[in-house]
Amino acid sequence: MIQREKIKDLLNSTAFDTEVKVMGWVRTFRNNQFIALNDGSCMGNIQIVVDFANTPEDLLKRITTGAAISVTGTLVESLGKGQKVDVKAASIEILGDSNAEEYPLQPKKHSLEFLREKAHLRFRTNTFNAVFKVRHALAFAIHQFYNERGFVYMHTPVITASDAEGAGEMFKVTTLDFDKTPRTDEGKVDFSEDFFGRATNLTVSGQLEGELAAMAFGQIYTFGPTFRAENSNTTRHLAEFWMIEPEVAFADLENNMQLAEDMMKYVISYALENCKDEIAFLNDRLLEEEKTKPQQERSELSLVDKLNFCLENEFQRLTYTEAIQILKHSKPNQKKQFKYLIDEWGADLQSEHERYLVEKHFKKPVILTDYPKDIKSFYMRMNDDGKTVAAMDILFPGIGEMIGGSQREERMDMLTKRMDEMNIPQEELWWYLDTRRFGSAPHAGFGLGFERLVLFVTGMTNIRDVIAFPRFPKSAEF
Amino acid sequence: MIQREKIKDLLNSTAFDTEVKVMGWVRTFRNNQFIALNDGSCMGNIQIVVDFANTPEDLLKRITTGAAISVTGTLVESLGKGQKVDVKAASIEILGDSNAEEYPLQPKKHSLEFLREKAHLRFRTNTFNAVFKVRHALAFAIHQFYNERGFVYMHTPVITASDAEGAGEMFKVTTLDFDKTPRTDEGKVDFSEDFFGRATNLTVSGQLEGELAAMAFGQIYTFGPTFRAENSNTTRHLAEFWMIEPEVAFADLENNMQLAEDMMKYVISYALENCKDEIAFLNDRLLEEEKTKPQQERSELSLVDKLNFCLENEFQRLTYTEAIQILKHSKPNQKKQFKYLIDEWGADLQSEHERYLVEKHFKKPVILTDYPKDIKSFYMRMNDDGKTVAAMDILFPGIGEMIGGSQREERMDMLTKRMDEMNIPQEELWWYLDTRRFGSAPHAGFGLGFERLVLFVTGMTNIRDVIAFPRFPKSAEF
Repeated sequence: MIQREKIKDLLNSTAFDTEVKVMGWVRTFRNNQFIALNDGSCMGNIQIVVDFANTPEDLLKRITTGAAISVTGTLVESLGKGQKVDVKAASIEILGDSNAEEYPLQPKKHSLEFLREKAHLRFRTNTFNAVFKVRHALAFAIHQFYNERGFVYMHTPVITASDAEGAGEMFKVTTLDFDKTPRTDEGKVDFSEDFFGRATNLTVSGQLEGELAAMAFGQIYTFGPTFRAENSNTTRHLAEFWMIEPEVAFADLENNMQLAEDMMKYVISYALENCKDEIAFLNDRLLEEEKTKPQQERSELSLVDKLNFCLENEFQRLTYTEAIQILKHSKPNQKKQFKYLIDEWGADLQSEHERYLVEKHFKKPVILTDYPKDIKSFYMRMNDDGKTVAAMDILFPGIGEMIGGSQREERMDMLTKRMDEMNIPQEELWWYLDTRRFGSAPHAGFGLGFERLVLFVTGMTNIRDVIAFPRFPKSAEF
Repeated sequence: MIQREKIKDLLNSTAFDTEVKVMGWVRTFRNNQFIALNDGSCMGNIQIVVDFANTPEDLLKRITTGAAISVTGTLVESLGKGQKVDVKAASIEILGDSNAEEYPLQPKKHSLEFLREKAHLRFRTNTFNAVFKVRHALAFAIHQFYNERGFVYMHTPVITASDAEGAGEMFKVTTLDFDKTPRTDEGKVDFSEDFFGRATNLTVSGQLEGELAAMAFGQIYTFGPTFRAENSNTTRHLAEFWMIEPEVAFADLENNMQLAEDMMKYVISYALENCKDEIAFLNDRLLEEEKTKPQQERSELSLVDKLNFCLENEFQRLTYTEAIQILKHSKPNQKKQFKYLIDEWGADLQSEHERYLVEKHFKKPVILTDYPKDIKSFYMRMNDDGKTVAAMDILFPGIGEMIGGSQREERMDMLTKRMDEMNIPQEELWWYLDTRRFGSAPHAGFGLGFERLVLFVTGMTNIRDVIAFPRFPKSAEF
């Protein structure tokens, strides 16, 4: 059994003059005397003071950036600035060398682009240590939020035969051979020979299955991977990403908005409390990055200010119709600065419009509701006007759409009418329709893109930097 | 905004004579007077007392099993047996009808086989309410256990280009068309035209990526879906299942065993505390089921006894070599009752052998260690004997293998030697080898099949009954 103390604990310890054993990776080694050692338990390094006169030279040479070492020594009050404790080394053992010439992470600032190519090593940098600690905290906070409220965590299937939701392009899942593809008599691919006896895909959403469970447990949520086979090479899209999808029976759009706002505030507040060092570091990192931009492009608020601002303010709620009025009379529309000018009711809002509303007009998170039915999904509940549906999108500064949701159409006749209008085959969704057939009830839910949440709370700007091994067109490395 | 009170809260309330509003699904309606109403917040129903003399007959007729209703009334002390409170209904509204002739869930006992066909509705039964509440509690307990210990939750990729681990048959993930498959000049499928620019699969394990993160954060875990395209139609295998894979730097096999045992005890104990009603129900369900079996096949312990037994006893630790000795001299081996007789060292253990060790010989969870290298994976650490590796399997009564893990081979030369011997291409795993190239260190981890854990804690016997929508050969319904 290996016994060692975590650097996080030692940095908060005052048990001076006791013997300790630490293990970690060398960040820097100054003057053959001071090792900055990190074991990943926190962002901070512990300083190891080496008795260089009594340490063999060939050992000293092997204490290089990236090397893993084990140190036994005494915890002492630090004489240096910036830290309270040091470890005065009595013995040092090299666990794993790191050739200084070959190790990609030098003790200097690397670009995020460079680190993306080294995604297997970038966790060892301060920035990615902070990002993934915050990601962890947000994931845990989500589970805790829903658990406290009595929601049931559902694992909806990743492999589905349903492609009826129409949320986007899907990946095929198959065990068929491209070279010896079984064919029917008509020459079509014979999917009855495939693993599942039918054509299957990777899910784009767990919502439809989530609704089934909500109609039994009352309140459920999913937290799992979802997929889009879209050729989007942007800083906001991934082919594989994680989504949280709560679904609540006996709830309308207003319950839904309240749940979403409560959740967002809960998890942001959890991260602020539990990741103080990480968020402080990311706050400073963002300030540095902003300095490289022209004055007018810089954010008015720091990261911490922006997070606190979200906690302290009610999200602005307005209808799509009200938003269209604001946009129509906005300066960028009047001056034709929008790429897509807002002319009439019914237009789909583009990112530039969402950002104008959130960042310029309201300057806080915005919940847009009651969209035209024609730009929304078949399962959203028709409003009494017959033109709009009880949908909501939650827009966040710098991110755009963070959450999309709706009250669901619980009335069988209205639902099947919409399905027919939108050419969605009822036979395929017989199980979904059964919830409306047997004990239907008002219900509502939404989807939160987890990586967009992590982007917002970390202040990172490229979604590929907040997931461990990003999947996007032409890239599935690691 | 819909306001309603949860039945779980009302059942524990003593606020008699206050007005309440409840919504839920009708389980039964007796004598035109007593509705058993369930809203999924707990297993228990609340009794609604209907003033049938003053309720229109056409409304009474619509109060059928499975219908969703909303009831406003007064909370009163119950006069009946088995419950403390009733709701005396002042008004009842039908939210969603349920045609009594068509509704598949009648107020009687249905077989698990029948309910598997109705997986979209089975959550509405007591058994599946209990199973999925326990599943939720176990998932939350896992996150809480690792969070308390400072582990970082990693989302390792579901789509991978790596097929090097050799853990089993994989599903292809592709956007290529079977009818217009792009071909290279040599006539091979041209995967450079595929979405990711290469052939990709669904992951069989997040371990290799998890190791990368452990070598930076020190302690990580994954909790995500994994896949096997194996044609296994058994009660213990799924094509899509969830796995928990912790990985710890500066850890050996003994640390690994301790972590696994601590985790299992933590989550079982959490479920016992937080799912009292559900486990009591499942305990009784299992007793009933056992009664249908011949005496000698019945379990000696009840479900609750079995769970407590795991908490109170140390897991039995022994080596593979010791296990072979026990098995060789065991009665079923001597009497040739094993299907696969244990003859010599090196044999792979079958389910019958594992069950003998756990259920007959030791009668508690068993950790088997130090398996012959030839029956284990390339990344397991070679022991000094040159014959065995630092692997561990944890075997549970009634389940068999619950956990498989090992100390990892951290020595570059030993690792590449094993890869060569086992024909695993080094080029494909360049990123994995980099962890041994730069700051390698002893580390260990394991994988826990989540559904097997749920099987054990719920006492269910078919793995298809503990996941919402099971995926197995020829079946991807819902």
